[in-house]
Amino acid sequence: MKAFMDKDFLLSTETAKKLYHEYASVMPIVDYHCHINPQEIYEDRKFDNITQVWLGADHYKWRQMRSNGVEEKYITGDASDREKFQKWAETLEMAIGNPLYHWSHLELQRYFGYDGVLNGETAEVVWQICNEKLAQADMSARNLIKRSNVTLLCTTDDPVDSLEWHKKLAEDDSFDVQVLPAWRPDKAMYLEKPDYLEYLACLSEVSGVKIDSFVSLVEALKNRIEFFASMGCNISDHGMAYVMYAPATEAEVEQIFAKRLAGEAVSEDEEAKFKTAFMIEMGKEYHKREWVMQLHYGVKRDNSQRVFRSIGPDTGVDCISNYTPSAQLADFLNALDITDELPKTIIYSLNPIDNAAIGTIIGCFQNSSAVGKIQQGSAWWFNDHKPGMQEQMTSLASLGLLGNFVGMLTDSRSFLSYTRHEYFRRIMCELIGGWVENGEYPADYKTLEKIVKGISYNNAVRYFGFDL
Amino acid sequence: MKAFMDKDFLLSTETAKKLYHEYASVMPIVDYHCHINPQEIYEDRKFDNITQVWLGADHYKWRQMRSNGVEEKYITGDASDREKFQKWAETLEMAIGNPLYHWSHLELQRYFGYDGVLNGETAEVVWQICNEKLAQADMSARNLIKRSNVTLLCTTDDPVDSLEWHKKLAEDDSFDVQVLPAWRPDKAMYLEKPDYLEYLACLSEVSGVKIDSFVSLVEALKNRIEFFASMGCNISDHGMAYVMYAPATEAEVEQIFAKRLAGEAVSEDEEAKFKTAFMIEMGKEYHKREWVMQLHYGVKRDNSQRVFRSIGPDTGVDCISNYTPSAQLADFLNALDITDELPKTIIYSLNPIDNAAIGTIIGCFQNSSAVGKIQQGSAWWFNDHKPGMQEQMTSLASLGLLGNFVGMLTDSRSFLSYTRHEYFRRIMCELIGGWVENGEYPADYKTLEKIVKGISYNNAVRYFGFDL
Amino acid sequence: MKAFMDKDFLLSTETAKKLYHEYASVMPIVDYHCHINPQEIYEDRKFDNITQVWLGADHYKWRQMRSNGVEEKYITGDASDREKFQKWAETLEMAIGNPLYHWSHLELQRYFGYDGVLNGETAEVVWQICNEKLAQADMSARNLIKRSNVTLLCTTDDPVDSLEWHKKLAEDDSFDVQVLPAWRPDKAMYLEKPDYLEYLACLSEVSGVKIDSFVSLVEALKNRIEFFASMGCNISDHGMAYVMYAPATEAEVEQIFAKRLAGEAVSEDEEAKFKTAFMIEMGKEYHKREWVMQLHYGVKRDNSQRVFRSIGPDTGVDCISNYTPSAQLADFLNALDITDELPKTIIYSLNPIDNAAIGTIIGCFQNSSAVGKIQQGSAWWFNDHKPGMQEQMTSLASLGLLGNFVGMLTDSRSFLSYTRHEYFRRIMCELIGGWVENGEYPADYKTLEKIVKGISYNNAVRYFGFDL
Repeated sequence: MKAFMDKDFLLSTETAKKLYHEYASVMPIVDYHCHINPQEIYEDRKFDNITQVWLGADHYKWRQMRSNGVEEKYITGDASDREKFQKWAETLEMAIGNPLYHWSHLELQRYFGYDGVLNGETAEVVWQICNEKLAQADMSARNLIKRSNVTLLCTTDDPVDSLEWHKKLAEDDSFDVQVLPAWRPDKAMYLEKPDYLEYLACLSEVSGVKIDSFVSLVEALKNRIEFFASMGCNISDHGMAYVMYAPATEAEVEQIFAKRLAGEAVSEDEEAKFKTAFMIEMGKEYHKREWVMQLHYGVKRDNSQRVFRSIGPDTGVDCISNYTPSAQLADFLNALDITDELPKTIIYSLNPIDNAAIGTIIGCFQNSSAVGKIQQGSAWWFNDHKPGMQEQMTSLASLGLLGNFVGMLTDSRSFLSYTRHEYFRRIMCELIGGWVENGEYPADYKTLEKIVKGISYNNAVRYFGFDL
Repeated sequence: MKAFMDKDFLLSTETAKKLYHEYASVMPIVDYHCHINPQEIYEDRKFDNITQVWLGADHYKWRQMRSNGVEEKYITGDASDREKFQKWAETLEMAIGNPLYHWSHLELQRYFGYDGVLNGETAEVVWQICNEKLAQADMSARNLIKRSNVTLLCTTDDPVDSLEWHKKLAEDDSFDVQVLPAWRPDKAMYLEKPDYLEYLACLSEVSGVKIDSFVSLVEALKNRIEFFASMGCNISDHGMAYVMYAPATEAEVEQIFAKRLAGEAVSEDEEAKFKTAFMIEMGKEYHKREWVMQLHYGVKRDNSQRVFRSIGPDTGVDCISNYTPSAQLADFLNALDITDELPKTIIYSLNPIDNAAIGTIIGCFQNSSAVGKIQQGSAWWFNDHKPGMQEQMTSLASLGLLGNFVGMLTDSRSFLSYTRHEYFRRIMCELIGGWVENGEYPADYKTLEKIVKGISYNNAVRYFGFDL
Repeated sequence: MKAFMDKDFLLSTETAKKLYHEYASVMPIVDYHCHINPQEIYEDRKFDNITQVWLGADHYKWRQMRSNGVEEKYITGDASDREKFQKWAETLEMAIGNPLYHWSHLELQRYFGYDGVLNGETAEVVWQICNEKLAQADMSARNLIKRSNVTLLCTTDDPVDSLEWHKKLAEDDSFDVQVLPAWRPDKAMYLEKPDYLEYLACLSEVSGVKIDSFVSLVEALKNRIEFFASMGCNISDHGMAYVMYAPATEAEVEQIFAKRLAGEAVSEDEEAKFKTAFMIEMGKEYHKREWVMQLHYGVKRDNSQRVFRSIGPDTGVDCISNYTPSAQLADFLNALDITDELPKTIIYSLNPIDNAAIGTIIGCFQNSSAVGKIQQGSAWWFNDHKPGMQEQMTSLASLGLLGNFVGMLTDSRSFLSYTRHEYFRRIMCELIGGWVENGEYPADYKTLEKIVKGISYNNAVRYFGFDL
């Protein structure tokens, strides 16, 4: 029996161990998609206790606590931080086989020096250890990032954002990790939302472009893209129920937009046409600027309206949507490709059953403008666990070139989540090492080093064109 | 090489063996969903020969025989029982990797003391052994149940059922296994069926409620729910092509129902609206009574109309339906949750590709009213095999709390199927044991015992609130 | 660590090795579905260099080269064959875990006697070795087929084809491998295509039947089926986006066809009705003649219109379509079964998530007219890799009788692809051997030999009724 989560955690063969310890573990981290608040980095936030860090905003953990029958009071309510931690520790015990079990213990090991098990009985000891540690200087936001060997990270930002904290960070010579904005214009696309017009008003003001037509909406966004670009941004991100393709004439799109501007509701068909036009305009702009387009889809949000109304979005009540027509995704990419305006693109579905379809679609649109121009994104959100990552990489390898994969991102709101990169790299090395041990790939360590370091770090740096 | 199906069948590590032999195998069975005929229990049915037991009603086996090119005469026709057994034995040989191979041999080992292989050549010997055994007293229905360490089982019953056999069993002190009814009101919901009005007439009569409106239909059903509850029932079950959500006003629903009462056909849209309203009314009633709602979906029945017309339903011509929109399932649950009237719910899809979507949906609706309030049901019907169970439990563990899983049920018409619980427990212990051996969960046997005994038995007892 | 792709490649247990070396590897090959050009067999084509063989028409490889950022010039363009080979060798390095990695090296081992690794550095050596070998007599088309122990192969042919090369081959006593045509009437069904009327004109001429109605279209096709049958054909093949079932009256179908004959476009609904009627007519004819019907679906073709317009179809820009309603597939089969006119049928979906649905559908329509009458086809096209084959066989075994599986086909345009049968057989023996080693199936070598030889060769010979 292997010891619990020791140095060879998830590594079962000699080759896997060698690949991980010699190649993967030594590489820095470029975290090209996360939800960290740049203000907290600039202000070098510190934390009073482990509950603040772990349970303050982590809806992954909230879900599991509810699943364990814990009262909301101890989750997002007014119970004490110590009580909440206790409930989490008791919940964790039941989370056998869950990535939260591994992430939590990896964080305890790497950041708090605690190698034991967290459960209801050890909660008090762990609480003490963590809180003592958190009081130390090396546990501030900036130090956590630096200790994690991060060279660059991209936050997730709305077009109307002033990016003031990014600016301050760029000007601050005392912190040498690049913190770049990433462009997420969802609010400008979700015309079905009740507060859409308020958002447009804000966008008009910030961009200085009066938005009274679809054309002017695009103009306002291009204005902001220019601003984001000036702040070092070269990555966009779109959250969608599914990637749609409902082509329409310019006149139709203007008509739909005018209807919405007049305060009217639009039909589902109109919504699809508008969003298609929106995405095509965005895609073309990204292509022009050599930005990367990220498409995140297959999600249905805010399912428990009771929870949503009580505590808002991103509180653990989202699920997989299994309406993700591959035909429309392919047609959307073609609509950009046909004029040779398809940007580098990373495709993530929340539904793991889409792996194979995505793997075949990306293969249709590759070309010499970039190595691995169209990527299948890393196992995302609910798929971000050992079997999910294994399946995503196995599918990618079976259908395309795993060697060119741009690899992992945290997608996290926490400063402790960099251990997810470690988790990913261990799983990747176990997979590749297994193939080598099994005689399915030669024990050619020069190439294996290139592949493992590539997927860990180098491919992403090359793909996004980061200046490191 | 491991011996064929020995005591460590499916258990490859020391930890898995320990978990199974020390914790799982000693637990009783609560079989909360099956299709056993309570009359056969009451009358303590005995069987003349193994063909009666195995091939009398088991459409799983019929399918495989047809697959092997066996004539219908030897399956459901008038060939002799010995001949039918021969054909089955010859078919089984080709069923390498099929759960029927394992179930058949587990039954031969546990109930008949035969540890050899069943095939065309050994069929005669096995026939003799089985039939001799079947003549013994300990092979009656009641004794089979007791020998299997079953403490409670739930049958599957229509609202119009008199539950007379349940009543007799409850009054019979000589049999201490609880035999409870479970409420399956499918016939009251399938308004598209040709014999729907006949069914309503029957329901009217039995309930004493004149059904001339949707409101009165619900009233009649509540009347029967009250009766079922008085007989100890606290579990419902619904079979559906997919879980739909098509909200409608009360007036619309009444109009649709009136149309059907008038003998007219309803459109697909109307059918969906009616069924949605039906399920919401049922769900609310279950919540009020603290019953569990089971949703079984993803099935398309009676596909070969030729077979169906010739030998009826449940004869082996059903298949997976892959139209199972996760959005509608989530919206249906929300429609009950929004007024805090969502009952404890177990969700089973016949399509294994729904595992991840279900795993994320259940996480949206958990709360402190029960531990593991919303469950993903055990790998169901066509998924009831080693890879299917592994996938269901791995998915559940990756997305939620495996430790709270209510575990296995037989879903069977046979008194020998309790070995499916053994099969499930072995697979569960192999999975969990593997994680421990691999350093992915600590070798903390106190917690492991709680988890393994929980999934085997204790969780179901707690969840359903059985009085044992 | 196992040596790279040695004699026990993919075989990890003693039983797997025994099954493969003693039973599987000694069986001949019947390749019942491929895209080889019969003229090249008749003329006993030879190749100037390895680029001609490998990169002349293999869009699987083209995709991967584009994925590696290779310019089109080096893929389908005017670069030299040596340059193209270099780019391919460099691409292959990154294809860790991809079947092309294994297929390429199997072909180098079996046909060129090269046991080393192909990569950018060894490309020159491999180029020399291969080209020297290709100059030898035993590397002609016919000799490659014979060396591969092929006893029979089926090409893929349009109804208007004269089958002249098949005729010549049949008359040529010097070549004793049967080369049979297979009937692929896609062009007669795709009425939505712009060149449909031209095709009909051609079919009219070849068949001598004036096509001015649906009835006459069917008559013309039956005429050609008769001709194909006279040339030894007994297999059909249909390529479809999905298997549809949209029943219509004869009058409706005639009306739709008349509309199209008049040069008008048809709606999607009309298209579905026409194609349903077409498939039912074909199915009935196949049943009458005891032909096998192959259904290949789940594909969306020519996605990059830019590539399609530039270099045509089958150039590596196809993908999985995930709209594959299982209900319609079941209803289509029922429409033939209901009158007992369902032919032997093999079902292949390009989408691996359809495995379970197909596995349950085939079970609905089995009967004693053939052993394993309705088959789930081997892992097809994008699924034709180790995990894809494992999943297809595991699913098939879990749901039906793996022992009756008709097994592998190359689906290839190349004379070197017979190693895919070896690849398949190794994976199959590893799977079955694993079950035996694990005590899940008895070590009964008589039965195992029957199963392994059956899946390798004998089942297909029996199923198709080949005269060998």
